[in-house]
Amino acid sequence: MINVKSYAAQSATSPLAPHALSRREPGPYDVLIDIAFCGVCHSDIHQARDEWGGSIFPMVPGHEIVGHVEKVGANVKKFKAGDRVGVGCLVDSCRKCPHCAESLEQYCDNGFSGTYNGMEQDGKTPTYGGYAQKITVDQDFVLRVPDNLDLAGAAPLLCAGITTYSPLRHWGVKKGMKVAIVGLGGLGHMGVKLASAMGAETWVVTTSPGKAADAKRLGAVGAIVSKDGSDMEKHANSFDFILNTVAAPHDVNAYFNLLKVNGTLTMVGAPDKPLEVNVFGLIMRRRRFAGSLIGGIKETQEMLDFCGKHDIVSDVEIIPIQKINEAYERMIKGDVRYRFSIDIKSLAA
Amino acid sequence: MINVKSYAAQSATSPLAPHALSRREPGPYDVLIDIAFCGVCHSDIHQARDEWGGSIFPMVPGHEIVGHVEKVGANVKKFKAGDRVGVGCLVDSCRKCPHCAESLEQYCDNGFSGTYNGMEQDGKTPTYGGYAQKITVDQDFVLRVPDNLDLAGAAPLLCAGITTYSPLRHWGVKKGMKVAIVGLGGLGHMGVKLASAMGAETWVVTTSPGKAADAKRLGAVGAIVSKDGSDMEKHANSFDFILNTVAAPHDVNAYFNLLKVNGTLTMVGAPDKPLEVNVFGLIMRRRRFAGSLIGGIKETQEMLDFCGKHDIVSDVEIIPIQKINEAYERMIKGDVRYRFSIDIKSLAA
Repeated sequence: MINVKSYAAQSATSPLAPHALSRREPGPYDVLIDIAFCGVCHSDIHQARDEWGGSIFPMVPGHEIVGHVEKVGANVKKFKAGDRVGVGCLVDSCRKCPHCAESLEQYCDNGFSGTYNGMEQDGKTPTYGGYAQKITVDQDFVLRVPDNLDLAGAAPLLCAGITTYSPLRHWGVKKGMKVAIVGLGGLGHMGVKLASAMGAETWVVTTSPGKAADAKRLGAVGAIVSKDGSDMEKHANSFDFILNTVAAPHDVNAYFNLLKVNGTLTMVGAPDKPLEVNVFGLIMRRRRFAGSLIGGIKETQEMLDFCGKHDIVSDVEIIPIQKINEAYERMIKGDVRYRFSIDIKSLAA
Repeated sequence: MINVKSYAAQSATSPLAPHALSRREPGPYDVLIDIAFCGVCHSDIHQARDEWGGSIFPMVPGHEIVGHVEKVGANVKKFKAGDRVGVGCLVDSCRKCPHCAESLEQYCDNGFSGTYNGMEQDGKTPTYGGYAQKITVDQDFVLRVPDNLDLAGAAPLLCAGITTYSPLRHWGVKKGMKVAIVGLGGLGHMGVKLASAMGAETWVVTTSPGKAADAKRLGAVGAIVSKDGSDMEKHANSFDFILNTVAAPHDVNAYFNLLKVNGTLTMVGAPDKPLEVNVFGLIMRRRRFAGSLIGGIKETQEMLDFCGKHDIVSDVEIIPIQKINEAYERMIKGDVRYRFSIDIKSLAA
């Protein structure tokens, strides 16, 4: 076993604190990764605090992992020591069901292995995430990180990036389309960068008039203030696609009204209470309301390559691991532009 | 003007009663139709009783019209006296907007002219529907009814038929797909006939175990009782497409659970209160929740031709116009299998 330093929650109510973790020695198909940075996702907080139920403790969160290959197993052909690599939300899946066959491992019929707070495919070995010095992962779930991307900013691509990229691609976003991103946070700011890089006329829909300048800096044409009825009316029936990143309960019907005939609004934020949907708003213009979950391994690599080509990374604030509990509190207040990225070297301190 | 007998509601609270109506003499592009049958749609009740607001009185309901051409205008090339024809929910639209250009007149940007309780494109001449002996309609909004179809049963194709046909086609229903129709009423029974004729493995989802035999008679493989948890669980994650015809408030989340990855549930019934949607159910399997409104003129003709080819008409109970108020009460109780069709000859009595 390989002993490494990590930060873990020992229970739903304890803060994250130093924790001694063992990783498996790389098997024939495994890659041992020396982690450089790990992004901090809002779901880290939900799971560390057991807000979704079923959390497994101790928990080492983190599924926005980038670093360098330290060692590979005998049969690993895809990677070699020193390669810049990443790991996202999945570290394994059944590899046999129709969805795995299509590289839609996120919809694996038999349940994928989450990078943390999950189980390996043996159903009994818990997984531990990226708030740690190293991680051992099967080569098929390891991604290449393009050389030109800053590693600290690339880390959040592994969750926030693919979560927004996948629905934009699935619904065919491209030049000539008008696209809105609802909510300008960790997911939303990636949505703006990606949709505008895909060539779409991209708008931000926000409750905060103060975010207009930042929206433009990130690539948007402008911002629509959702509380401003005349602004919303001006853009009614004009959008081809809306990516909704808001996870708090909210009135989604006002956003449907922005969609053209055959337009789609896709949720990537998941409010924990049901949303009230006015069915007339869908019927009268044949609109669609959809959901999307992260992305598969093949598409995650495609997203990283796209980001390499377009020089896209997340806007990050780098923190040492010792600031992680404070970072959680700031995220809950929306006080980060737009993602924390943990400098994993700080674990050695 | 052409004076005809009709039945009209004089106010939201008065029953339908005989009413003297004038139709315009056919202009150069008009077709004068001698109406044979008119189907009775649930929306006739909503509008006659002003349950959606904004009703125009007196109101002659009816938008499931079939009959024979009596006379055509000088420039009409598409029809001649004696032809079997139909008129559905629309009698005109702006003909200039992008949706009209695609024959999606039901989504006309400038507002289509409804067959009744609407206005002609001049914005001031009220329209009156098919509970009347004759109607004058522009040739571009008149449909051909195939010779082999029984006229009484063909009438409901003009609304119930196209309302279910259009989303089945839009979402690509075909052989090899598993499709559910939720609710077995006027719309639902057409959905079963059409989806099974398109080659799909078609199931009915119903609250009434007693409807299983009828579901099979109409072309379904079987019925799933929505109140039976084990029945619903057995079919979880298995449907490609669900057509939901239920207009009463209900739990739509249980139906999402029946959908595969990338599956779509389309509403054609419009509950007057919002539906509560559990967003996790959409996200976890990339499902879609959509709406659909009737269909355009071109697609309505395609539907009629499809029904001609497959010998499909609605199951109707023929009534004289004098029974219309009683028929409304029976419809509210769900006491019709599956559509009333008014024998318009009874108006002469």
